[in-house]
Amino acid sequence: VVLGAGFGGLNVAKDLADVPVDVVVVDANNFHTFQPLLYQVATAGLGPDDIAQPVRRILRRHRSVDVVLGRVDSIDLEARSVHTAEGVALTYDHLVVAVGAVTADYGIPGVNEHALGLKTLPDAVRVRNHILNCFEEANRIALRGGQPDPALLTFVVVGGGPTGVEVAGELAEVRRAILAKEFRDIDASGARLVLVEAADHLLRAFHPRLRERARRALVARGVEVRLGTAIEQISEGGVVLAGGEELPARTLIWAAGVRAHPLGSSLVGELTADGRVPVDEHLCLPGRPEVRVIGDLAAARDRRGRLLPQLAPVAIQEAHHVAASITSEVTGRPGPKPFQYRDRGIMATIGRSEAVAQFRPNVRLSGFLGWVAWLGLHLIELIGFRNRANVLVNWAWNYLTYDRGARLILENGR
Amino acid sequence: VVLGAGFGGLNVAKDLADVPVDVVVVDANNFHTFQPLLYQVATAGLGPDDIAQPVRRILRRHRSVDVVLGRVDSIDLEARSVHTAEGVALTYDHLVVAVGAVTADYGIPGVNEHALGLKTLPDAVRVRNHILNCFEEANRIALRGGQPDPALLTFVVVGGGPTGVEVAGELAEVRRAILAKEFRDIDASGARLVLVEAADHLLRAFHPRLRERARRALVARGVEVRLGTAIEQISEGGVVLAGGEELPARTLIWAAGVRAHPLGSSLVGELTADGRVPVDEHLCLPGRPEVRVIGDLAAARDRRGRLLPQLAPVAIQEAHHVAASITSEVTGRPGPKPFQYRDRGIMATIGRSEAVAQFRPNVRLSGFLGWVAWLGLHLIELIGFRNRANVLVNWAWNYLTYDRGARLILENGR
Repeated sequence: VVLGAGFGGLNVAKDLADVPVDVVVVDANNFHTFQPLLYQVATAGLGPDDIAQPVRRILRRHRSVDVVLGRVDSIDLEARSVHTAEGVALTYDHLVVAVGAVTADYGIPGVNEHALGLKTLPDAVRVRNHILNCFEEANRIALRGGQPDPALLTFVVVGGGPTGVEVAGELAEVRRAILAKEFRDIDASGARLVLVEAADHLLRAFHPRLRERARRALVARGVEVRLGTAIEQISEGGVVLAGGEELPARTLIWAAGVRAHPLGSSLVGELTADGRVPVDEHLCLPGRPEVRVIGDLAAARDRRGRLLPQLAPVAIQEAHHVAASITSEVTGRPGPKPFQYRDRGIMATIGRSEAVAQFRPNVRLSGFLGWVAWLGLHLIELIGFRNRANVLVNWAWNYLTYDRGARLILENGR
Repeated sequence: VVLGAGFGGLNVAKDLADVPVDVVVVDANNFHTFQPLLYQVATAGLGPDDIAQPVRRILRRHRSVDVVLGRVDSIDLEARSVHTAEGVALTYDHLVVAVGAVTADYGIPGVNEHALGLKTLPDAVRVRNHILNCFEEANRIALRGGQPDPALLTFVVVGGGPTGVEVAGELAEVRRAILAKEFRDIDASGARLVLVEAADHLLRAFHPRLRERARRALVARGVEVRLGTAIEQISEGGVVLAGGEELPARTLIWAAGVRAHPLGSSLVGELTADGRVPVDEHLCLPGRPEVRVIGDLAAARDRRGRLLPQLAPVAIQEAHHVAASITSEVTGRPGPKPFQYRDRGIMATIGRSEAVAQFRPNVRLSGFLGWVAWLGLHLIELIGFRNRANVLVNWAWNYLTYDRGARLILENGR
């Protein structure tokens, strides 16, 4: 039984498809989300269907793999069974838990109520709807002869990691491509984009030269980058920064980080500070070799004892490892060596023709070259030919025309 | 002021873009929906973004055209002003009302509560979610060792017009492509598709030979076609047919017809039986030459006095007419002759490589040829290059692989 159809769970299922075992994948959604591109949906560059694929379709050729749409309600480690909220009970010989992470609020008041997360596909659609509705409301106020509250066109992104940088960069494109070109009654220069980060630099995981490059690229696009700025509280009217300064804003996008899925607490008593489940060198639950934990939920460590980052490549490599180790148990072939993450590099895009990337051991790219590397890698990785072709069409179109077509306000209380 | 951004309203705005007038288009959605392909979204052949375009983008090059996202609350014919629910007030010299039609329940009890309409993009997404959730629920019941209630996999389509025929035909494809291939625990042959029509033939507007061809094509695809069968009532558990027979079904798709938008009653006291607004030979409100009504809301008639059908080509031709007549008033050039609809033909698709089409004066196509004609025409008509390319990619992929990728269950209580 594999819990979760993210990068981790899907790769386990695929690897086990040719092994004489029955696999059941359980996920609360009927689709896999290509999370690295969520920010593109949030900023209307791609439609939701472009970055998601039905789980059943991804696995359809693998006859030994079944899929259950359901929310995991409980795991009984003694009875070796999983129960979903919909009443499905599954017993297992091997369990792989790959349920990922959720938005972390770090205990800051108001985050859940007033900030927009960006961790799921519905999150991204909600951000898109919200931004577009702010534009429309400002336009209506101007048409009524009024002066829009500046907060209505102030967009604050909290968190200077890759997601925050990518959203802030794309918001600058949205301001230029949509707001300036299509809203006749408001002045796009009145729209304010702010990126707030508690550390004194962006992109912690990157080389200092690339961090600074990213910062300058954002500033050049008209984003106010506030470093060394912690958040004290979030209200409906805006953000209160540490020190008491208030930043009135109708839109607050929370990209400050994630914590492991709460299901971890049903596996083990003691979790890491960010909610992850400690695992041994083969990613098994200590004392439970039949239960494996991978991806954002797993507290796997590198050789120096540092927690591995919560990134898709880590989840994918862990998936291959546990699939190999289950295969060895089933077939009697020798198992893999202890898990070790091979860091091939990281990248983040800032906007049109601008990205930063660093590869092991010592290659750093930025600007157009970085962007081409980023684009190529993401296209290759997008699961499924159809999505790839669609995404290519959309991106080529967006690039050539400065256009963003995927911006239907489809669901909300308007 | 143009109310509505459907085929009618958009074409009025485009035609008036080069005339020295200011145009404001008001719509409750920020997107135009290509309604003839709604059934494709409902059956997971295309994603919502594929058949919709932002209104602002469609009109962005036309500097004299402004757009307001808003719901029309009232029209003051004396003061020549329109008010939206959001508080925007617009005064006009000329008003074009093109707000279209809504689902008609014909007074049959339970339609609003228990049937799924198919007139808007959210409607189509709701149908898609509902169908896919039924499959998933049946699969879970089977996994729990139970026997799914046959109603869970019974899909009833009411209405034998083009929409009903197209949905029923595509449901047969969905059964074959998704249910049979990807749900390991249920037997697709247990799924039942029923098309119910009160008249004793399908596709009333078509030649009897094509009606029969469509019926046979549906039956060949495993659809039960129930002609001469009226509906008495709809409940949560299914449909009660005239005569008392009950048809238990969890899914009821209502494609039985539309009535004009209720805004018509604020224009004139006396409406036609299906809620349309009587207009004169130039599509003006009688006695109010500055108010024009077009599209599904207008009770325009042909030379024999018959009401024109509520179809996109009618709305488009009417749009060109009223734009020409407004242009003539503004510029002093001679105006157009009284409006006359040129019927170029109608078509409906039944499924993979099967459609019926008839063109004036006497060309009838069916089967693969009809389908190619249908496909070509719809691709050409889809507004905007980007959507066209995406749709082409999706359709080519679907055709070659029998696949349907656009089936994310995105919004609902699961």
